[in-house]
Amino acid sequence: MPTNVSPELYTRVQQFYARQMQALDDCRFKEYAATFTPDGSFQHSPDAEPAITPEGIVAELENFHRRFDNDPVQRRHWFNHIDLEMCADGSIRSTVYALVVTVRPNSKPEIAPSCVVHDVLIDEDGAVAARSRLVTHDQIR
Amino acid sequence: MPTNVSPELYTRVQQFYARQMQALDDCRFKEYAATFTPDGSFQHSPDAEPAITPEGIVAELENFHRRFDNDPVQRRHWFNHIDLEMCADGSIRSTVYALVVTVRPNSKPEIAPSCVVHDVLIDEDGAVAARSRLVTHDQIR
Amino acid sequence: MPTNVSPELYTRVQQFYARQMQALDDCRFKEYAATFTPDGSFQHSPDAEPAITPEGIVAELENFHRRFDNDPVQRRHWFNHIDLEMCADGSIRSTVYALVVTVRPNSKPEIAPSCVVHDVLIDEDGAVAARSRLVTHDQIR
Repeated sequence: MPTNVSPELYTRVQQFYARQMQALDDCRFKEYAATFTPDGSFQHSPDAEPAITPEGIVAELENFHRRFDNDPVQRRHWFNHIDLEMCADGSIRSTVYALVVTVRPNSKPEIAPSCVVHDVLIDEDGAVAARSRLVTHDQIR
Repeated sequence: MPTNVSPELYTRVQQFYARQMQALDDCRFKEYAATFTPDGSFQHSPDAEPAITPEGIVAELENFHRRFDNDPVQRRHWFNHIDLEMCADGSIRSTVYALVVTVRPNSKPEIAPSCVVHDVLIDEDGAVAARSRLVTHDQIR
Repeated sequence: MPTNVSPELYTRVQQFYARQMQALDDCRFKEYAATFTPDGSFQHSPDAEPAITPEGIVAELENFHRRFDNDPVQRRHWFNHIDLEMCADGSIRSTVYALVVTVRPNSKPEIAPSCVVHDVLIDEDGAVAARSRLVTHDQIR
């Protein structure tokens, strides 16, 4: 299987995802939203309305996380099998497995749902950003 | 710990596994089998007969997956800790952790079994292929 | 998000963790301890006393693993989202998610605890070593 993905790009995307998801799981939503392009789109499930622009993404995350206001929870988004494909317009299609690990006091970690992350990334001047993200859920396919 | 594995090879193997396992989990068996060499061998547990050649691997996978014919299941093979070792003949020994995530409607994902994938890979003209794969299972060691 | 982490370093760290954790899970404690610097420090939870020097790390691991003497268990430490940050003194701060998969006969794998690994790594002459490791646990934050 030949591939035209350079090691520079592949590791940059891995580092990008590591920092992006650690920001999300630490509830640093502005930092998460800043990993999207100014017109970036984030759709955390196929039947959700996409959140547009970093400001819109922050608002969506703050709204979503209200459900955890009285719930002392630590979430960890795990990624696996980053498959990159170069597109004709210079963007990068990225297809990645995801599992959400949820930890609450005095109970075992829950590992659900199982998802697939469908990103369009751009890589300019050595910096990766997400132009769009759609997350599909295995449970509801 | 010195290592003589180049970033080109390491990322190529990561990209290879990502595409290979996404093909398997989408039941694109011909695409999975095409990631093996023409004389490639695939043994999904130590007491199974190895499937040989891409045609034999497709037949084995079709046979194995008949058990899911009336079972709406989405499987996801997760990999971790890819350890590569260059061999004297130019091939690459790859030892990788694996977990199988199984999702069925109206239930939580099951995460089992825990396995170790023992591959011999070749890397020719920038393309990785599997010469052999043996999967051992932690549960039955 | 710009980053000054080279693909050489990023893949070297991935290969380092793969070999280090496979050594730990195979109970090759001397090999695990040898991945630390001569003055290296390993603290497997915030309220544990750090083990210092490779000899001290081996002693700590042998002591910890006595609990498994009559318990036929296979543990697998999974890592995810390796975030590297270059420090002014040339060392590398590495922040990584970890999950411990525990397999016992006739039961399903347990996946717990969920942790974050906080490493300070050094990279000299193409070889990575750990100067310090602190593991925090999500359950007891």
